Amino acid sequence: MNRHGVKIRPRYGETDQMGIIYHGNYFLWYEVSRTTFLKEQGLSYRSMEEMGVLLPVIEVSCQYRKSALYDDDLEVFSSIDHLTPTRLSFVYEIVRDGEETIATGKTHHVYLDPEKKRPMNLKRHFPEIYELLKNLKAAKEV
Amino acid sequence: MNRHGVKIRPRYGETDQMGIIYHGNYFLWYEVSRTTFLKEQGLSYRSMEEMGVLLPVIEVSCQYRKSALYDDDLEVFSSIDHLTPTRLSFVYEIVRDGEETIATGKTHHVYLDPEKKRPMNLKRHFPEIYELLKNLKAAKEV
Amino acid sequence: MNRHGVKIRPRYGETDQMGIIYHGNYFLWYEVSRTTFLKEQGLSYRSMEEMGVLLPVIEVSCQYRKSALYDDDLEVFSSIDHLTPTRLSFVYEIVRDGEETIATGKTHHVYLDPEKKRPMNLKRHFPEIYELLKNLKAAKEV
Amino acid sequence: MNRHGVKIRPRYGETDQMGIIYHGNYFLWYEVSRTTFLKEQGLSYRSMEEMGVLLPVIEVSCQYRKSALYDDDLEVFSSIDHLTPTRLSFVYEIVRDGEETIATGKTHHVYLDPEKKRPMNLKRHFPEIYELLKNLKAAKEV
Repeated sequence: MNRHGVKIRPRYGETDQMGIIYHGNYFLWYEVSRTTFLKEQGLSYRSMEEMGVLLPVIEVSCQYRKSALYDDDLEVFSSIDHLTPTRLSFVYEIVRDGEETIATGKTHHVYLDPEKKRPMNLKRHFPEIYELLKNLKAAKEV
Repeated sequence: MNRHGVKIRPRYGETDQMGIIYHGNYFLWYEVSRTTFLKEQGLSYRSMEEMGVLLPVIEVSCQYRKSALYDDDLEVFSSIDHLTPTRLSFVYEIVRDGEETIATGKTHHVYLDPEKKRPMNLKRHFPEIYELLKNLKAAKEV
Repeated sequence: MNRHGVKIRPRYGETDQMGIIYHGNYFLWYEVSRTTFLKEQGLSYRSMEEMGVLLPVIEVSCQYRKSALYDDDLEVFSSIDHLTPTRLSFVYEIVRDGEETIATGKTHHVYLDPEKKRPMNLKRHFPEIYELLKNLKAAKEV
Repeated sequence: MNRHGVKIRPRYGETDQMGIIYHGNYFLWYEVSRTTFLKEQGLSYRSMEEMGVLLPVIEVSCQYRKSALYDDDLEVFSSIDHLTPTRLSFVYEIVRDGEETIATGKTHHVYLDPEKKRPMNLKRHFPEIYELLKNLKAAKEV
């Protein structure tokens, strides 16, 4: 499966005094969605870090169509949008009550070597991880 | 002055285990920068809310060139990018040690009527606020 | 049942550069635990707010025995500790991997009237809610 | 000087839908206050980490007398409450508009060796840091 949804219940501490979820907090949900997605494919981000691959964010965007509210019944979907040996991006969609798209977003990542603190070529250094990501992306295109 | 900078010291609680500032937290700094900017022009966001104008975010983006670190000496600049009777956007630049641009970003807002929970035409309902914003933007174009 | 557990997976954005979960974030989990607890007893905090009862926090404490880590398998238990017509407190216990207590905590609340912005006597103004809370607490003492 | 105050302007993203600052966020301000305090005494927490001393939190508490609001003019004071070769605690007081105490708190810390991931005796391993802390505490007792 090329797209993964994770249930999110907005927390009270994530609201602001406008009575809606503070816009910056959506990126925490995107993180939960993409890492759970990878994990269910056998690629736990925790173990990736231990192996020596970090996925720092180099660019993000988010479009807010409707405001998420405290205790809403949300599902946050993620899928791989673009994949190269040096870059990776995910797209997201937040759906309320199983029917209403309230937000969409995108995050761009590089692969970082935690020792050298430098970007790396994933295909060269971790070919098995690269293949797994490629398969995940390919599934999307079917 | 059409551009405003506010000093930010990243907090320990804003870091993540990669040893850098978590990407979602930059939007808190953008918020501090734009509201301080408006406040210094006599337009406190706290009093705008009391008057009946909210500025919810409808779209954001951020580009991360270098990672912000705990206790860095940062200045977060904001200016009005685009202004219409129904929309407003700001652009941001984060500068480290007075010389290095480490991130840029943008936030788009509508004007919201807190009673009706609906977007409003600011020029019609709050012409004096609209004029002030127009002057701030014009200064930029000089 | 007088004690309620909710599964929590610490998020990456909740870690800090020490490689552990930032201490302030535990209070978000306590919130999730107590509101889920009440909700499963038919007392959604969202509907309490709509009825006119807020539960602001007037005191908190937390003891950290072991550090919670990113992506840990945690269960956060809550139960009502003390209940009077004007006050309410919860106690918490965070258990890792179903066996190890890593933290305990407590939160104290008053009942607030959102119109008057003043504490209220719950037993007098919302006797049915007070009874429900009393039953939840009593179950604990059996 | 044995007590240190740092100015804090609550951020919009720190509010919740009750219209007040979410209780868990006060611990971020306590962190800012104590680290700024130490820094002004020549003991930057950033350089302490680089030297090999972490100060993880083992216990916290906070009493909320009045609610902090968005954009309030706050000063967060901190001082060393208790100091031993293996433990350190700080107490805090949050003052609004220079006159009203709205919250008090306390945080307890151990000294952690980041290599061994174990608590350490600061007096033995970093006697010069221990002396500095002792002097800071002593000033309080004069």
